[in-house]
Amino acid sequence: MALKHADPGQVIDLTPYGAALAQKQSIALFKSEDLEVMRLVLLAGSAMPSHDVAGEITIQCLEGSIEISADGATHVLYPGHLMYLAGRAPHALFALEDASVLVTVALKRS
Amino acid sequence: MALKHADPGQVIDLTPYGAALAQKQSIALFKSEDLEVMRLVLLAGSAMPSHDVAGEITIQCLEGSIEISADGATHVLYPGHLMYLAGRAPHALFALEDASVLVTVALKRS
Repeated sequence: MALKHADPGQVIDLTPYGAALAQKQSIALFKSEDLEVMRLVLLAGSAMPSHDVAGEITIQCLEGSIEISADGATHVLYPGHLMYLAGRAPHALFALEDASVLVTVALKRS
Repeated sequence: MALKHADPGQVIDLTPYGAALAQKQSIALFKSEDLEVMRLVLLAGSAMPSHDVAGEITIQCLEGSIEISADGATHVLYPGHLMYLAGRAPHALFALEDASVLVTVALKRS
């Protein structure tokens, strides 16, 4: 994950990496009081095993395609597709093609 | 705003409306425990006057272009650009072209 985070009001470029994707890594875009936003890079055939986070999340496919398994169902997200999941919902990702994905997490305050 | 909201785990299509945009309206995609997500439609020349919400937000341009004024600065968002703003940060939107915009709001619990 990158160390330099975006500030409020800063323009963050999420246009597709395209041919450069294979050289990219997953980055944390920012983590602030209420939200954490990251851009994950998953190369074709790679998986993120089932896991969960405390808060609700949205997962948006920016390029490529990914399979999401959650709530006993599996769906494929293509560019421009978004899904949200309840907090503590286990979910697994599998990249069908080289993909980058925007993940937004609602942070829970204790 | 549409009355039928998406459920967790459902695929939500955010691909550009394109030529159909002028016939579209802003819709609430879902509002759940931690997050509220909507897709706003702003036709060229239309504005959303300065306002603020309690929680942090992200604003992502899906198509067209919009000018965002916040924190004393004005930026233009083009497709694939995202910005986040702190809770209670006043912001105004102005559509430079017909645009649709994804807005994610972190809900504050009292």
